[in-house]
Amino acid sequence: STSFDSTEHPHRRFNALAGEWVLVSPHRSKRPWQGQQEETEQEQRPAYDPTCYLCPGNSRVGGEQNPKYESTFVFNNDFGALTADVPTGGVNEGGLLRAEAESGICRVICFSPRHDLTLPQMTVPAIRKVVDLWVEEFTTLGARPDINYVQIFENKGPMMGCSNPHPHGQIWAQRTVPGEPAKETTQQLAYFEEHGRTLLSDYLTIELEKKERVVLENEHFVVLVPYWAVWPFETIIIARRPVQDITQLTHDERTALADAVRRLTIRYDNLFNISFPYSAGLHQRPTDGQEHPEWHLHMHFYPPLLRSATVRKFMVGYEMLGDPQRDVTPEFSAGRLREQSEVHYKGVPA
Amino acid sequence: STSFDSTEHPHRRFNALAGEWVLVSPHRSKRPWQGQQEETEQEQRPAYDPTCYLCPGNSRVGGEQNPKYESTFVFNNDFGALTADVPTGGVNEGGLLRAEAESGICRVICFSPRHDLTLPQMTVPAIRKVVDLWVEEFTTLGARPDINYVQIFENKGPMMGCSNPHPHGQIWAQRTVPGEPAKETTQQLAYFEEHGRTLLSDYLTIELEKKERVVLENEHFVVLVPYWAVWPFETIIIARRPVQDITQLTHDERTALADAVRRLTIRYDNLFNISFPYSAGLHQRPTDGQEHPEWHLHMHFYPPLLRSATVRKFMVGYEMLGDPQRDVTPEFSAGRLREQSEVHYKGVPA
Ligand SMILES: O=P(O)(O)O[C@H]1O[C@H](CO)[C@@H](O)[C@H](O)[C@H]1O
Ligand SMILES: O=P(O)(O)O[C@H]1O[C@H](CO)[C@@H](O)[C@H](O)[C@H]1O
Repeated sequence: STSFDSTEHPHRRFNALAGEWVLVSPHRSKRPWQGQQEETEQEQRPAYDPTCYLCPGNSRVGGEQNPKYESTFVFNNDFGALTADVPTGGVNEGGLLRAEAESGICRVICFSPRHDLTLPQMTVPAIRKVVDLWVEEFTTLGARPDINYVQIFENKGPMMGCSNPHPHGQIWAQRTVPGEPAKETTQQLAYFEEHGRTLLSDYLTIELEKKERVVLENEHFVVLVPYWAVWPFETIIIARRPVQDITQLTHDERTALADAVRRLTIRYDNLFNISFPYSAGLHQRPTDGQEHPEWHLHMHFYPPLLRSATVRKFMVGYEMLGDPQRDVTPEFSAGRLREQSEVHYKGVPA
Repeated sequence: STSFDSTEHPHRRFNALAGEWVLVSPHRSKRPWQGQQEETEQEQRPAYDPTCYLCPGNSRVGGEQNPKYESTFVFNNDFGALTADVPTGGVNEGGLLRAEAESGICRVICFSPRHDLTLPQMTVPAIRKVVDLWVEEFTTLGARPDINYVQIFENKGPMMGCSNPHPHGQIWAQRTVPGEPAKETTQQLAYFEEHGRTLLSDYLTIELEKKERVVLENEHFVVLVPYWAVWPFETIIIARRPVQDITQLTHDERTALADAVRRLTIRYDNLFNISFPYSAGLHQRPTDGQEHPEWHLHMHFYPPLLRSATVRKFMVGYEMLGDPQRDVTPEFSAGRLREQSEVHYKGVPA
């Protein structure tokens, strides 16, 4: 064929939300893979593990004892990357050696007392409790004058550096706004100033018309593979209403967010019949006291797997030194996720 | 202590070369690790492997036969992410769906006919032949009007997505300038316009005075852990003379680059007594026909390991959604690399 075809020809796509490019090589999915294979363990975990430092009633490394919690539980990370009591100060030698003290708070959130569950195996009301806790934490942390950004996230699975299978996520809240949300602020602000609508509202309108990248919808949220997705099965959950942060969600919207997370993660698990690894997190307005009408609440899912339960995408040489690169199109991945059932392959947990 | 101390307190450092921040958490190296352990195989490879598609005389997947090469060998990747014959064209819907056809050439470079070697086990004259081939390839590819950037790199080890242990690297050359060198152009240009010297010359002057991050030196190159290093044992090789690309190196300088690569990679292997995984690559001026006096040739090394041969740093949740984060200081890592011998732990290959 002599005219450009994005299902066939290498091309770059622009990430309108972050202001960056990704290289897409659709033809490359055909290459044989002789490299590293990941381990998959279909382990059966007990509902309670006496050696787990996140199970109810157990002791943590720092010596503290967890309460006998019945839904969620949150505490300060015993080995947090950020601490609240850092003396201010820094370094600046000719703009070439530059450092600034950084303060913050790292929290750990247990999603369930059950050691053997993960989000896709929990009920909507149970996930709704996690959403409620996110709201509470965002409110309290964001109200502090020394906290200008609150990052809520989950690393799921050993492949994503998660060292404990007990269902849990984290919150890192800090003085400065990190690079990723800062880039998204720049892009969203420029768009909002030009159009008077949020970038993601207009983007959602286009995607809902085209349908080819949409994975699932409910009344208040849409899940899709972004046009500029980097990871093979990357998705984004976008709020239909342009709210700036999670505290602005109505009660129905909170339940709808829980529903979207549940249905998406069930589809993920069903894709390769494993507990699907990913890192996921909410992106919201900075908590710097400004309104940020340009911000539009969303949640990113970055899963590493490419072809099967054991073959992952490596973001290495070219990706580290040049640009991120992907081997299948976002449209292909969206189709695969759309095909999946919303009944978990393991059935309903006892 | 009540005053800021970068060996103790969490802080952010600014990457003056790329214009980005990294979060440094020195206190965090004490946390226990119960997560994923990497495999290490102290495999003995044969000097020639009849099933390897890179060994001399063997057939590749595409059917072509490799020559009986005696030092280096270069060919077009049979499954390249970029191809030269892409029709021009693209997509633009309201700036939100944006794509552009991208053309380019992907090359594979065998460093040695010996299947059982890696760069640190090769002699300086043998690595010098690799440098000579880099020069040749940069010259030929860079001269093409459809190629505006040439990325030379190596992925070493299965952990870095390398699917064949035969010593080899890659070159991806393309129409547009990728994000990473584009950021470095912006930063270097701003500095050059203000100071009339390259950013890396002035940076090198400071580092050579302080010594604490320098790993090794020779007459023409300095290897150090950058002040803003993201990966635990990340290093950079900087040319003492501010040349824009590898073709400007004198014969002595080419040999000195080979010497620096050899001595650095021996230290890496000796650190944990394994074949040390990394992705590495040269950053050079775009080949867009302009002079780029702001550019200063350097080579990045990004190794994933953190504490031992089996515990890696995971760049996951916070890092993907916020900023890169590291658990030990660059000064600590430089000290560990400085301690290492420059005699390979396996001795001299037969
Ligand atoms: O080209 P290779 O060695 O097959 O593939 C490797 O390097 C590429 C360039 O960094 C990456 O895109 C791949 O994910 C990685 O597995
Ligand atoms: O905090 P954890 O679960 O111990 O650690 C994990 O998540 C962190 C935040 O993304 C990363 O910095 C670590 O590399 C990763 O292993």
